[in-house]
Amino acid sequence: MFAPLQNDSFLRACRRQATSHTPVWLMRQAGRYLPEYCATRAKAGSFMGLATNTDFATEVTLQPLERYPLDAAILFSDILTVPDAMGLGLSFAQGEGPKFAHPLRDETAVKKLQVPDMAKLDYVFKAVTSIRKALNGKVPLIGFSGSPWTLACYMVEGAGSDDYRLVKTMMYQRPDLMHHILATNADSVAAYLNAQIEAGAQAVMIFDSWGGVLADAAFKEFSLAYTQRVLAQLKTHHDGVDIPRLVFTKGGALWLDQMANLDCQVLGLDWTANLAKARALVGGSVGGPGKALQGNIDPNVLFAGPEQIANEVRKTLDSFGTPHTDATQTGPTHIFNLGHGISQYTPPEHVAVLVETVHQHSKFLRQNSPSA
Amino acid sequence: MFAPLQNDSFLRACRRQATSHTPVWLMRQAGRYLPEYCATRAKAGSFMGLATNTDFATEVTLQPLERYPLDAAILFSDILTVPDAMGLGLSFAQGEGPKFAHPLRDETAVKKLQVPDMAKLDYVFKAVTSIRKALNGKVPLIGFSGSPWTLACYMVEGAGSDDYRLVKTMMYQRPDLMHHILATNADSVAAYLNAQIEAGAQAVMIFDSWGGVLADAAFKEFSLAYTQRVLAQLKTHHDGVDIPRLVFTKGGALWLDQMANLDCQVLGLDWTANLAKARALVGGSVGGPGKALQGNIDPNVLFAGPEQIANEVRKTLDSFGTPHTDATQTGPTHIFNLGHGISQYTPPEHVAVLVETVHQHSKFLRQNSPSA
Repeated sequence: MFAPLQNDSFLRACRRQATSHTPVWLMRQAGRYLPEYCATRAKAGSFMGLATNTDFATEVTLQPLERYPLDAAILFSDILTVPDAMGLGLSFAQGEGPKFAHPLRDETAVKKLQVPDMAKLDYVFKAVTSIRKALNGKVPLIGFSGSPWTLACYMVEGAGSDDYRLVKTMMYQRPDLMHHILATNADSVAAYLNAQIEAGAQAVMIFDSWGGVLADAAFKEFSLAYTQRVLAQLKTHHDGVDIPRLVFTKGGALWLDQMANLDCQVLGLDWTANLAKARALVGGSVGGPGKALQGNIDPNVLFAGPEQIANEVRKTLDSFGTPHTDATQTGPTHIFNLGHGISQYTPPEHVAVLVETVHQHSKFLRQNSPSA
Repeated sequence: MFAPLQNDSFLRACRRQATSHTPVWLMRQAGRYLPEYCATRAKAGSFMGLATNTDFATEVTLQPLERYPLDAAILFSDILTVPDAMGLGLSFAQGEGPKFAHPLRDETAVKKLQVPDMAKLDYVFKAVTSIRKALNGKVPLIGFSGSPWTLACYMVEGAGSDDYRLVKTMMYQRPDLMHHILATNADSVAAYLNAQIEAGAQAVMIFDSWGGVLADAAFKEFSLAYTQRVLAQLKTHHDGVDIPRLVFTKGGALWLDQMANLDCQVLGLDWTANLAKARALVGGSVGGPGKALQGNIDPNVLFAGPEQIANEVRKTLDSFGTPHTDATQTGPTHIFNLGHGISQYTPPEHVAVLVETVHQHSKFLRQNSPSA
């Protein structure tokens, strides 16, 4: 059904297999910093018009790959499609973030919550298949979802928040209600990601964008446990190929020791993490178990000049160090990415410098490694 | 000049001396959650009207102490008084955060920046003396300032920010300009805190509220180094008494190993930190060196019910464990606080539960400790 994969560097790095260069892709790589994205969005009329139309979603997913030699594509969609399918009424006001018409504010609303009929999310699965076909084997396609906790934040707050007062009030006051939301979210996200896998996603990523706002003990109980509940239900293989699982917790570097136990292959890190320390902690050794690491340059680096961007990219690669080069075994690997989504104000030509430097310098590291 | 101190538990804990209970105070304890604060603010007309008037600043600083048996008072002021004195033009629009009329956006503006004449901040030092007198020895008075980096964030952004794009652009693009701002800020903050000490502050705290938004390497170069530059210039004693120094970096738990080398007595932690791990890392042992720890309950806990609040307070105290009880030596100590400022929506009666539980349970822990 799909063309054979030509560039498998991303999937190999996910599996902790050696690669000739460090693969790179960027969170939110199909986005407003690209004029061609803005043009398609104008045609679509709105963000959800873009996300729900198979042709438009395919078009914008492929746009960054036409500009830059990125090593992976990621489904163009929103993390809030699942609660929308649950009936919360997602909308995007002009120039503002997402909003829910029916946030979860009381016991009645919470108790009504159910795993949605996946047919309501068919537009997402159709987009996955369409994008996978359009990629024609160029690079692998990553599917994704928000984490149960991150979805719950939006579902209770009704929108973005700077203090998470409403969702945390429910969490501390009525932990039973919060656990009900999170369990429902986890089972919904698992069904959603499995359907993306069936539709053609070659890896799946869980974005715990708001895990980092939780207190130390609460993170484990209300975020990590439910991310694991999703992971435990995911298909590990499809069509005879393994499907790597990536987990990104913004602000999660502090809890890397706990995340090491997640049933996933890759841990994503934001820019506050030290990649050398993270590698030592969870990256494992050649022949031993461990997690591949993804990240973690500050997206604001892209506002500096080309020389400075190249410098910072090299520092990030050097911080991880040379990934292992043993073709016969698994070992520590690095997938280059930003520490969070790319800013809409990023000059597109700066992204070219980043991608090129990742490829060049990561080859240089391998060629000059003592074990190479 | 000032009355003798009756409750020295806070200062003793700062010095890692044993205390009969864990001292407690709350960041932003004089604030909008108190109706009596709102009444005084209404009389003053504006936030800066409140902060610049000695009588009003004294009145609101003492208000929470009249309600709750807190173990310390903190000067009522704003972290942005120093850049205001530098000529950036601070204002507070109704219902919004702080704004600067003249943010630092280009080389000319940055190069003009100088350590301000401390006479312009005389209203702060007068407030310190007035508050110290009004406290009449009840509890010690903490002076404070924003950290050089945190001030720089506001000075370049001109207001709060959610991505710190402008300040980070300058940092990555023109690190020379950023270092000039930070060096000027550090020397200004040091002069400012020394003048507070001379006016009567019995401890001083540096708030690095935005240190946690920096990338791993950048934190060390652009925040930590300048916090240390402040600390190196501070008076260690005044009137024959030592003046403890506290440093709080929101989001800094990840870098606790680096902060252990700061020339201060106390490290403040937000709720993402695990107090047991932090104590093991930097708290030291009885007779050995180390830092006192301050924090770290999530302020949102105060939106739960009284029983749940008491529970979470006990969990926080238990997480640190029993502070040392050896009257002849220094050792690990804990100062209870929130992990960030108290929310304006907090029910005042819930704060009473928190303070009472800290005192009760921390006495219980000491009485039931094997070494007691």
